[in-house]
Amino acid sequence: MANIIYGKNAVIEALETQEREINKVIISNSIHTDGKIDKIKTLCQKRGIIFQFVAKEKFAQHSEFNHQGVVAHISPIKYMSLEEFLSKEHKNSSVVMLDGVEDGHNLGAIIRTCVCAGVEAVIIPSRRSVQVDAVVEKTSAGAINHIPIIKVNSPVSALQQMQEHNWWVIAAEADAKDNYYDVNYSDMNFVLVMGAEHAGVSKSIIKLSDFQVKIPMLKEFNSLNVSNALSAIIFETVRQKLKKDN
Amino acid sequence: MANIIYGKNAVIEALETQEREINKVIISNSIHTDGKIDKIKTLCQKRGIIFQFVAKEKFAQHSEFNHQGVVAHISPIKYMSLEEFLSKEHKNSSVVMLDGVEDGHNLGAIIRTCVCAGVEAVIIPSRRSVQVDAVVEKTSAGAINHIPIIKVNSPVSALQQMQEHNWWVIAAEADAKDNYYDVNYSDMNFVLVMGAEHAGVSKSIIKLSDFQVKIPMLKEFNSLNVSNALSAIIFETVRQKLKKDN
Repeated sequence: MANIIYGKNAVIEALETQEREINKVIISNSIHTDGKIDKIKTLCQKRGIIFQFVAKEKFAQHSEFNHQGVVAHISPIKYMSLEEFLSKEHKNSSVVMLDGVEDGHNLGAIIRTCVCAGVEAVIIPSRRSVQVDAVVEKTSAGAINHIPIIKVNSPVSALQQMQEHNWWVIAAEADAKDNYYDVNYSDMNFVLVMGAEHAGVSKSIIKLSDFQVKIPMLKEFNSLNVSNALSAIIFETVRQKLKKDN
Repeated sequence: MANIIYGKNAVIEALETQEREINKVIISNSIHTDGKIDKIKTLCQKRGIIFQFVAKEKFAQHSEFNHQGVVAHISPIKYMSLEEFLSKEHKNSSVVMLDGVEDGHNLGAIIRTCVCAGVEAVIIPSRRSVQVDAVVEKTSAGAINHIPIIKVNSPVSALQQMQEHNWWVIAAEADAKDNYYDVNYSDMNFVLVMGAEHAGVSKSIIKLSDFQVKIPMLKEFNSLNVSNALSAIIFETVRQKLKKDN
């Protein structure tokens, strides 16, 4: 498994050289903390990488490797920083932010849809979110290589930073007053925030958002899959842009 | 596993009483054909149920049951017949037909989307298509109980029958001239046909369809997941209907 790094020294080296993008570091909670474990924790904190302590049984799948109770999961892509993305020029651009999507199949499908719809970046939080891993790569049908993926520690700060750069924040929210097709998306840079399937977009994001939009449901059954909800909204923005060009 | 019936007599009884909906009958190709197997084949043919011969290794998962080399997979729902559906009154209604979708997660997501968008039925072929099973039930988040699912032996004949009842057939097709949002969906009964992810809608269906529509892609990367493609198109039909009502 080329997407996993095993053992304390190898993980430290990967954290120090920063040549490979690390999604998270997993540490067995049955090993003794030593200088190297401390160093791994410090490096993770410095670089904003999640580290998790798990039961040693979780390491059974790695038993053929000398993992010393520490493994790092490598991302198949290099994430882009929000600063780098914002430093480029954008005009009538769209970005999608996911707030708490935890299913890899959903993230893969969303990235595919975003690429097809000309979305310029996908933003995911580093916590409480699925990361770009092998499952996401596969379900995305390779789309992860066609769009920048930005990982942020604080979705709220990231959105505020985007607002300072004149991006409009649009939250998809089942209780919104406006239908998604009543907003004019053609003349602005906007970031569309989609929430987790059950919890929706978090309150702090709803509060700072400039618009909230909903998808009107024709049945009481109100339970659209997040990737399908995104598809409905994002292709409406495409429709508006293409209609305007004609 | 309540969704499987084991053994020759039990399968024959299920086929004869028709009290439970059978998705397919699986027969081990290492058992001797006898009168009961012949009877099972005849009953399946009569009722349009798929039967498949498989290697006996496939029965290893059923080893705790006395399966005699024959099992029947039960559907969690009762399918509706096309005749019954067409005998009801429909006005400005939509139906979705899937032509060769083989992934249960996709079918589940599609059924959810259809329920939310007020689609009145989903049509699937009995061959070369996933059937409604436990995976579909789960991914649909229960939506399979909120919409009629119609299973047809010949998608082409089914569409012709619908055309005779004044339904319009719309095929989603990547090479279509028209964008999906350039069709007026508000004043007709229509059936939207979505193809398999790689093959698309079959040529014979394209040929008999009244419209073909495509989703314009903003990037060369042309590989929308079928449930996401459906979502974009079907919510455009919802948008048009709701706009018209205002």
